[in-house]
Amino acid sequence: MTLSAPLVVVGSVNADIYVEIDKLPKESETIVAKSGHTFAGGKGANQAACAARLSYPTYLVAQVGKDGHASLVKDALASAGVRLDHMNTVKASTGHAVVMLQPGGINSIVLVQGANVSWPRLEDGIGRLTTTVQQLIRRAGAVLLQREVPDSVNLEAAKIARSANVPVVLDAGGADTPIAQELLKCVTVLRVNEAELARLTGLPTCDLEQITVAAMSVHQLGVKQVLVRLGELAGVLLFQKEHPLLTQSSIQPPAIIDTSGADDSFTAAYVVALIERQVTAEALRFAAAAESLCVRGKGTIPSMPERKTLQQYLKDHVPAAVRAENDHPNENPMLILKEHSPFGNENDSTSGVEKLKPNEDLSVTT
Amino acid sequence: MTLSAPLVVVGSVNADIYVEIDKLPKESETIVAKSGHTFAGGKGANQAACAARLSYPTYLVAQVGKDGHASLVKDALASAGVRLDHMNTVKASTGHAVVMLQPGGINSIVLVQGANVSWPRLEDGIGRLTTTVQQLIRRAGAVLLQREVPDSVNLEAAKIARSANVPVVLDAGGADTPIAQELLKCVTVLRVNEAELARLTGLPTCDLEQITVAAMSVHQLGVKQVLVRLGELAGVLLFQKEHPLLTQSSIQPPAIIDTSGADDSFTAAYVVALIERQVTAEALRFAAAAESLCVRGKGTIPSMPERKTLQQYLKDHVPAAVRAENDHPNENPMLILKEHSPFGNENDSTSGVEKLKPNEDLSVTT
Repeated sequence: MTLSAPLVVVGSVNADIYVEIDKLPKESETIVAKSGHTFAGGKGANQAACAARLSYPTYLVAQVGKDGHASLVKDALASAGVRLDHMNTVKASTGHAVVMLQPGGINSIVLVQGANVSWPRLEDGIGRLTTTVQQLIRRAGAVLLQREVPDSVNLEAAKIARSANVPVVLDAGGADTPIAQELLKCVTVLRVNEAELARLTGLPTCDLEQITVAAMSVHQLGVKQVLVRLGELAGVLLFQKEHPLLTQSSIQPPAIIDTSGADDSFTAAYVVALIERQVTAEALRFAAAAESLCVRGKGTIPSMPERKTLQQYLKDHVPAAVRAENDHPNENPMLILKEHSPFGNENDSTSGVEKLKPNEDLSVTT
Repeated sequence: MTLSAPLVVVGSVNADIYVEIDKLPKESETIVAKSGHTFAGGKGANQAACAARLSYPTYLVAQVGKDGHASLVKDALASAGVRLDHMNTVKASTGHAVVMLQPGGINSIVLVQGANVSWPRLEDGIGRLTTTVQQLIRRAGAVLLQREVPDSVNLEAAKIARSANVPVVLDAGGADTPIAQELLKCVTVLRVNEAELARLTGLPTCDLEQITVAAMSVHQLGVKQVLVRLGELAGVLLFQKEHPLLTQSSIQPPAIIDTSGADDSFTAAYVVALIERQVTAEALRFAAAAESLCVRGKGTIPSMPERKTLQQYLKDHVPAAVRAENDHPNENPMLILKEHSPFGNENDSTSGVEKLKPNEDLSVTT
C-alpha cells in the first residue's frame, strides 16, 4: 500500500504480433515468415508500464479477453509493476495487432481492437466505469488517456477526474477521428504530433509559427499545456498558456536499437515527473531521458527504463540551464490543491509555490 | 498410469491467429479487422488432441517457445487430455500462423515456423530426440507424424519406431517438399491427398485409375497402406498391398460449421482405431464419423469429439456392410507382434489373427 496519489492510466492493451516477411501474401497465398515475435503493447499498456517501471504507483484500467494474449499482456504489465486490480476480462478477444514487417522499414498492420473497444454499455446516465474505478480516479495524482479505447470511455474518465480536480493528460495518438470538444475541455495536458495538431485544429502545422497559432487555438479550449512532438527523436515543443515556449531536444542515444514505444515512454515519464512536482523544464528533460533510454533496448515494455537508471543518467548529464528553470516552478500544471497529495515535500523548490487548479483560467469557446 | 502402448505424435504446435478483413492491407497501410480470434492448432497438436479426446493415451512430442502462445497451446492440449511430458521449451517463438480471412472464403496466411523448426542440432550420429522420447517411441502403439517439423526429426522418430516394430503413420500434409525415400521406407500407413500423391510419385492423379497406379508405386517403397483423401468431406480411398481397394465416403453432417482440423481428426481417429485393432473398414468408418462430428462445432481442438459421443454415433448409425468386413481383420497393418501390447483382447474378432510386422514384405526400390 502506498500513500501516493496514484497515476491512473485508462487505455488499451494489445498483443503485438510482429512477422518479418519479404513481401505481403497475395489472396489465397501462404508464405513463410523469416521470423515472428509477439510482445505486449498498446498505448495504455506501454504508458502504464513506463510509469510503473519508474517506480510510480500506477494502475491500468483496461479490458482483455480470456485468452493467451491476455496472459502475455498481464504478465508483462505485472513484471513492470503495474497494478492490474482494474483490468477487466470481457467476452471479446484481447486486442492484437499483426505487424507485417517488410524490407526497407515498411509495415503493414492488421489491427484487432477486440476487448479494447468492447466496454460495457450501461444504461443512459450510468458510466461505463465501475464505482471502484471512479473512486480510484477521484483520488489519482493524474489520469492518463490515449485514443485506443472508445471516446465515451475517455470522456467518462476525464469528467470524473475533472470534477475531482485531478489533472487529465490526453495523448492524441491511437485514432485519427475528431476529438470531441467536451473531452478537450477536461484536458490539462494534450500531447499531439504535428499531424494530429493539424487535424484537431484544422490549421496548418508546417513551421513553428503555424504550430504556435494552432497550439494557441487549443489553449482557447481550456487545455493548459500543448505538448507537440516533432517526429521520432526530434524533440518536443511545449506551449503553455501565459508562459514562454519551452523546447526539449531529444537526447540522442549512442545507437538506436528499437524505437517502438519511445513516444509512450516520453509521455508517461513526463506525466510522472509532473505529478512528482518537478518543474516543467525538468520534467521535459526527465521524459527525454526516458525516451532516449527506451530506444537503447529491444522491445517496448522490456526497454522502459527503471527509476534508478534514469536518475543516474540525469545525474551524469546535468545541463547548466536546469538550475535557472527552478525559478519558474509554477509552470507545472499539476500543482493543484489536493489535500491528500503527498508530493509537496518531494521537491523542495516547489514547496510554497502557488498551486493551480487545472484549467482554472478556463476560457472555453464552444 | 495406463498399461496401453500409447500413441506418440511427433509434430507441430501453432497458435492460429485468425483475423477477418475486407481486403489485404497494402504496404504501409493499417487496417482494422472485423474480428480476430486465436486458437491452438498445428497438425501435430490437432492430431494429438483428437486421439486424446477419444480417450486414447497420447503423448505429443513437440517444441514451443517461452511465450503467451505456448500457454495457449499447452492449455488447449492439456484440456483435451494430451500428455505433455515431452513438450520441450526452446529459445524460439512458439509456431504461429496469421490467417487473414477474406470474403468468399479466401485465406492468405503468414506462417511463423519458430520452435517447430528449431529442434536441437546434436552431434553427428546422435539423434535430435532425447533418450526418454526414444524410449517412449519404442514402447508406443504407433507413431504419428506430419510434415510441419524438420524431415530429420521425422526420420529419426520413424527409424527408432521401425527398429522396434512400432507402426509409423505419416500424414504427408504440412509441406510440399519431396519426402525422402529413407523416411518412406519406415512408413506403415501414408496419408496423402491427390495433389500430395502426384507430387510424391511424379504421376498424374486425376482419376481413380491414375490414383491407383500412383498408390501402387508407393507400395513399392514398402508402405503397406496408402490412404488417399479426396478433398474436404469427399471421402477416402484406401489402397492396401494385396488387398482390395476400400472406400469410405464422408459422413455428411446436418450442417458444416467449421472444417478446420477435419482432416486431422480423420487421420488421428483412424490411427487410434487401428491401434485398437479395429478391422480396417471399421477403422475408416470410425475416422469418418470423427471427422463428421468435428465439423459440427466451431474451432479445431474444441470440436474434436469425445469417445462416448463417437461411440453413440456409430451405435445409432450401423451400416449393414460392417459385419461382413469382420471376416478380414488382418487387413489392419497395426496387428504386429508386440509382447507388451494390451490390445489383443479389446476386439475379440481380432484375437488369434495373423499378426504382421509393418513392412515385413518390404520390397524397396531405391
